[in-house]
Amino acid sequence: MRFMTSSDKSGNTSDTSDAAAGRTGIAAQDWATAAADPQYRAAVVDLLGALAYGELAAFERLAEDAKLAPTLADKAALAKMASAEFHHFERLRDRLAEIGEDPTAAMEPFVAALEGFHKQTAPSDWLEGLVKAYVGDSIASDFYREVAVRLDSDTRELVLAVLADTGHADFAVEKVRAAIDRDPRVGGRLALWARRLMGEALSQSQRVVAERDALSTMLVGGVADGFDLAEVGKMFSRITEAHTKRMAALGLAA
Amino acid sequence: MRFMTSSDKSGNTSDTSDAAAGRTGIAAQDWATAAADPQYRAAVVDLLGALAYGELAAFERLAEDAKLAPTLADKAALAKMASAEFHHFERLRDRLAEIGEDPTAAMEPFVAALEGFHKQTAPSDWLEGLVKAYVGDSIASDFYREVAVRLDSDTRELVLAVLADTGHADFAVEKVRAAIDRDPRVGGRLALWARRLMGEALSQSQRVVAERDALSTMLVGGVADGFDLAEVGKMFSRITEAHTKRMAALGLAA
Repeated sequence: MRFMTSSDKSGNTSDTSDAAAGRTGIAAQDWATAAADPQYRAAVVDLLGALAYGELAAFERLAEDAKLAPTLADKAALAKMASAEFHHFERLRDRLAEIGEDPTAAMEPFVAALEGFHKQTAPSDWLEGLVKAYVGDSIASDFYREVAVRLDSDTRELVLAVLADTGHADFAVEKVRAAIDRDPRVGGRLALWARRLMGEALSQSQRVVAERDALSTMLVGGVADGFDLAEVGKMFSRITEAHTKRMAALGLAA
Repeated sequence: MRFMTSSDKSGNTSDTSDAAAGRTGIAAQDWATAAADPQYRAAVVDLLGALAYGELAAFERLAEDAKLAPTLADKAALAKMASAEFHHFERLRDRLAEIGEDPTAAMEPFVAALEGFHKQTAPSDWLEGLVKAYVGDSIASDFYREVAVRLDSDTRELVLAVLADTGHADFAVEKVRAAIDRDPRVGGRLALWARRLMGEALSQSQRVVAERDALSTMLVGGVADGFDLAEVGKMFSRITEAHTKRMAALGLAA
């Protein structure tokens, strides 16, 4: 988290917990206050739309991957992850409706990028599906956590709640490790696969950033004060580094 | 529900609510008492295994059908149904584990029949998927309700709880009606489709009944007293009749 002790442009909060946490600017405001700025509002609608469709697409792909499961228990584990993604989708969609936005309209702009990602990264077997579930879950968690600090208190609470409910991919780690132990050559193939997943994720993210002005502006600090382009570059670096470490821990040179 | 006022072979219940409801025999016992009979126990394990795998397979197919959805809202609606089925699966699986049974072993005997059903009834478009979801949900509800009265109080409670959480298919009815209103020829095609679904469901059920002794014996009254083969025939008739009425209400001559 990034603390600002100098100017607090939009400041003036009565939320003592935010103040205690050293939150300033947008992060110290609630939704009603922050959303008075139409650009901030548009950015959050974009963010919620992107996350909502991301969860719905993840549901679909995990359910699809469940078909590749070698056992009924494995199938059930993947179905559980899919179902959890669906519930995240519901919360994000309900929030969009609650703030008076049409969830479908909010999601539409992100359909192409997410479909593009999933189309380019259809797993060819069970292990590739597991690595994808794990990588996807982890990157999503990292991103949620990064973006949360730039959000008003109400939106942040929702994003962190959805985040807290992830991490169903532990069993994926276990299965992938066991497979590599049995046959180390599997590791080489899956390492390449993980690299492709990350590359495709970054390329689709850039596409979204290039197309969605309000969202990108928020990410580069145009609305939530205190962030600049270099900061966003660092965010992508942190997410990539965390990914690399996770892959190494999994026995995959990323 | 069927009330018996005469002989109560296994009777002797302290459950006043069951007594008040006129339940006798197995239906008046709790699981601990009823499961002392190994044949009854085996029948319930079969039943829970069949229902559990049925829910897991339904999850998979609904998630698959969600891909055919013409809009994001429709996709979300089908994903919601799929997710609900997954939660039913979880409850049934957890119950199997709770009574000391391996859920996978309990489900295995029913994989072939359910896969057979779904393989023979893969929807070719969105409307066929909706009719299948609706028909499947309805038949499952009817069956749960019929079988519930033959079960011990604990198992009955679980089965009714899972049942109470179904009925997500209302929107399917609405969509199918609208499609038939727009083009009445659609009704003829879907009527044929619904007939095929019911035929395939009956044929796979018969396969299961023929293969699973304990379950069939319970259904024909060998364990839960008061039921005979004619009664089971009547049960299938009632389910088929209810299906026919639903199809007619939907604008489909079944």
